Amino acid sequence: MINIAVMGYGTVGSGVVEVVNTNGARINQRIGEELNIKYVLDLKDFPGNPVQEKIVHDFETIIQDDDVKIVVEVMGGIEPAYTFVKRCLLAGKSVATSNKALVAKHGAELLSIAKDHNINFLFEASVGGGIPIIRPLNSSLTADEIEEITGILNGTTNYMLTKMFYEGADYDSVLKEAQANGFAERNPEADVEGYDACRKIAILSSLISGQQVDFEDIYCEGITEITVEDMKYAKAMGAAIKLLASSKRYSGNRLHAIVAPCLLYPDHPLYNVNGVFNSIFVHGNVLGDAMFYGSGAGKLPTASAVVADVVDAAKHLNRNIMTMWKQEKLKIEDKAGSRRKFFVRMKGSEEELLPQILDSFGEVEVVKVPGLDGEFGFITPVMMEGDYETRAGLYQDQILHMIRIEEHKK
Amino acid sequence: MINIAVMGYGTVGSGVVEVVNTNGARINQRIGEELNIKYVLDLKDFPGNPVQEKIVHDFETIIQDDDVKIVVEVMGGIEPAYTFVKRCLLAGKSVATSNKALVAKHGAELLSIAKDHNINFLFEASVGGGIPIIRPLNSSLTADEIEEITGILNGTTNYMLTKMFYEGADYDSVLKEAQANGFAERNPEADVEGYDACRKIAILSSLISGQQVDFEDIYCEGITEITVEDMKYAKAMGAAIKLLASSKRYSGNRLHAIVAPCLLYPDHPLYNVNGVFNSIFVHGNVLGDAMFYGSGAGKLPTASAVVADVVDAAKHLNRNIMTMWKQEKLKIEDKAGSRRKFFVRMKGSEEELLPQILDSFGEVEVVKVPGLDGEFGFITPVMMEGDYETRAGLYQDQILHMIRIEEHKK
Repeated sequence: MINIAVMGYGTVGSGVVEVVNTNGARINQRIGEELNIKYVLDLKDFPGNPVQEKIVHDFETIIQDDDVKIVVEVMGGIEPAYTFVKRCLLAGKSVATSNKALVAKHGAELLSIAKDHNINFLFEASVGGGIPIIRPLNSSLTADEIEEITGILNGTTNYMLTKMFYEGADYDSVLKEAQANGFAERNPEADVEGYDACRKIAILSSLISGQQVDFEDIYCEGITEITVEDMKYAKAMGAAIKLLASSKRYSGNRLHAIVAPCLLYPDHPLYNVNGVFNSIFVHGNVLGDAMFYGSGAGKLPTASAVVADVVDAAKHLNRNIMTMWKQEKLKIEDKAGSRRKFFVRMKGSEEELLPQILDSFGEVEVVKVPGLDGEFGFITPVMMEGDYETRAGLYQDQILHMIRIEEHKK
Repeated sequence: MINIAVMGYGTVGSGVVEVVNTNGARINQRIGEELNIKYVLDLKDFPGNPVQEKIVHDFETIIQDDDVKIVVEVMGGIEPAYTFVKRCLLAGKSVATSNKALVAKHGAELLSIAKDHNINFLFEASVGGGIPIIRPLNSSLTADEIEEITGILNGTTNYMLTKMFYEGADYDSVLKEAQANGFAERNPEADVEGYDACRKIAILSSLISGQQVDFEDIYCEGITEITVEDMKYAKAMGAAIKLLASSKRYSGNRLHAIVAPCLLYPDHPLYNVNGVFNSIFVHGNVLGDAMFYGSGAGKLPTASAVVADVVDAAKHLNRNIMTMWKQEKLKIEDKAGSRRKFFVRMKGSEEELLPQILDSFGEVEVVKVPGLDGEFGFITPVMMEGDYETRAGLYQDQILHMIRIEEHKK
C-alpha cells in the first residue's frame, strides 16, 4: 500500500479525492499497489462528508508520518505551500502540485531538492489543467530542440474573447456573464491581465530552455483593452483575437517570451480553440508542428493530471525522473528585437494619413470596417517590435490600439 | 557511452541517423551519456555517404555485440522484423520501432518478453508518427478510464479527402495527384482501404483495454467509394468527411472499434484537421476531452518519435516502463450494437419515398443538394447499426451510399 496525503480540500483537492475514489481499481492496477489517501490537510472540518475521517489540521502530522510517501499540494499561493512542499521533499516525500505560482517561482529549487533525494517533484496540472504537456515535454519531445511553444493557457479569457468574437458583446458585459456563471473570479485580475498565462509560459519557457525564466521578465498584456471595434476589424481580416502566451527560440538559448492578445488567421492551429478550452502549440526542429488540446482548468480535469503525477511518483518511488530546469537564470530577450506584423487602428482619414504611414511603415495593408467612421486600420510588414515602436511614436495622438499578429510559419 | 544499432536505412532509418546527428548534444544532455550509433543494418551499401562506415549486412553482428544496448527497428513488415526484434529482446537489448504491423500483431508478446528481461519495447512512432500518443496513454492519462479514442490516423487519406472537400475534385484525380507528389504510394491499398488506420486503432484499442485487440476483428471501410456527390451533401449538411479510426468503451471492457469515413460537424475537435496532418481525440472519464495533433508521418517527425523512444530506453536501461497490454484477447463487440446517426443517399423522388422512409427509420432529416436530381439524402435518428441494416435492407435498390455520422458528445 502506498499512502499519500492531500494538502488542501478546495476545488482541486476534492477532485483528487473523487478521482481516486472513482478510478481506484484502474489506478492501483497501473501502480501495481494499492493507493491510499491517509490524510487530507485543511483548516476546515467537513462533518457528514466521508473525507472527515482523514482530515487533519496540522501539517506536522503529515511530515512526521514516514508511511506517507507522496504528498499532493493543491492549496495554491506561495505560502505556506512553499514551506510545506520544501519540507516534504527534504523529508524524502515526493510531491505533486497544481500550483503554478509555486512552480513558476520555486520550481528549479524544488526540482533540485527532489533530485538530491532521489524522489520527484511533479507539476503536470500547473499548466494546461488536464492537458498532458509537462510530461510530454520532459519525456516525449526529447529528440527535438523546441523552437516555439505558444499556448492559449487561460480558459477564462478564451471564453470571454470567444463570446466577444461570436456574439459581438463588449468586454464588460462578457466579464459580468463569465463571473455570473463561474468562469471568472470576482476579482478577475489574474486572468484578464494575463498574469495567470504569464506564470504558465514562464514554466514552459524554463522547461524548454533548461534554465530559470522569471515571469516578471516576460512582457504581459491582458485583454482589458480589447473592444467591440477590435473584434470587427478582426472579422474583416478573417482573423480571431486570442490571448497567446508564447516563447520562441531565436538562436541558441535566446528566448523571446510574451503574453498578449494576438490576431490569428485560420491556418494557425490555435485559431479554432474556443470557449474555456486550452491548447498548446509546439514546434520542434525535427518534429515540426504538434498541438495539445483539452480542458485547461476545472475540478476533475485538473485532478486527473494531479493523480497521474501521483501514479508516476508511485511508480518511481526512489528514482528521480524530472527534469532539465536549472536554477541558473535565463534572461529573456528584449521584446524590441522580436519580429512580427502589427495591426494598428488609427484615428483620422485614410486619405490624409496613408501617404505618411507608407513612408514610415513601408507597404502596409489597409483594413476598413463598414460603419466605423473616422478611423481605419492597417497591417504593417514584418518588423522588429522596437522599429514598430519608433514609428508608432510618430503617431501617438492618432493610434487607437495596436494588436500583434501571430502568423503560422510553414 | 550508449551504443545503439539501427535496422533499416530507408526513409525513417535515415531520419533517425539525421536526428541523432542534428540534435546529438541536446539528446546526450537528456540521457546523461553519449548516444552512439554503432551499426546500421541494411542490405544495400551507401558509398560516399558517411553512414557507410556503420553499415553491416548481417544481423548476427548486432545481436552478438554486447555493447549494443538499444536497437531501432525501422525495416517495416512482419518478417524478418519480428524474428530480429524478438531475438534482440531475448538478448537483453531494448527495442524502439515504428513498425505498426509488427506492433499490432506481436505487441503483447514482445512487451511481455521485454518485461521479463527488465528492458523495454517502445513504439511511439507506430501510431501518429511524430505525435506523442503512446507515451501519454501509458504515463500521462493514468488516472482515467479512457472511454473513447478516435483518430485521423492516416495522412494520405486525410490529404485526399481534404482536397476532395475543398476543391471538389474526384477520387481518381486526387489519388493520382497524391501519388505524383509523393503523398500516396504507387499501390495505395493500405492507405485508401483503411488497413493502415486499422492497425493503428488496433494498437490504441489494445493499450486502452489492456488486452490484445486483433485488427482483423475491426470492421474496416476505406475511402474508395467517396464521391464528388457525397462531398456536396457533406457541405449541404455543414459537415466534413474524414476517415476516422475509433474505439469506444460501451461499458466495462466492452469495446466497439471501427474504421470508416464519417461525417463530422464543426463542433467536433477533429473537424478542422486537414491535409496530411493526423490528430487523435481522447475522452477520459475524469479528464474529459483532449486532443493530440501533428505530423502523422514523414521522415523527420517519425524519426523524432523513434529517437525519443531511444532516449527513454537509454534512461531506463534496466527498468521496464511499459505497459498494460496482455496477450489475452479482447473480442471487439459486433458493430450491429453500436449506436449513431446515419446519412443515406437515396435514388428516386423524396415525395414518393419519404412517407415509407419515415415509417421505417422514424423522424429523418432530409438533405437536398441543388443540381443533384433524381436523388436525395436523409439523416436517420440515432439507432443501432444492426437496426439500420435491417431497415436499409428494405431499400437495397434505392440506396446509393451510406456514410456514418460521428457526433461529438458533450
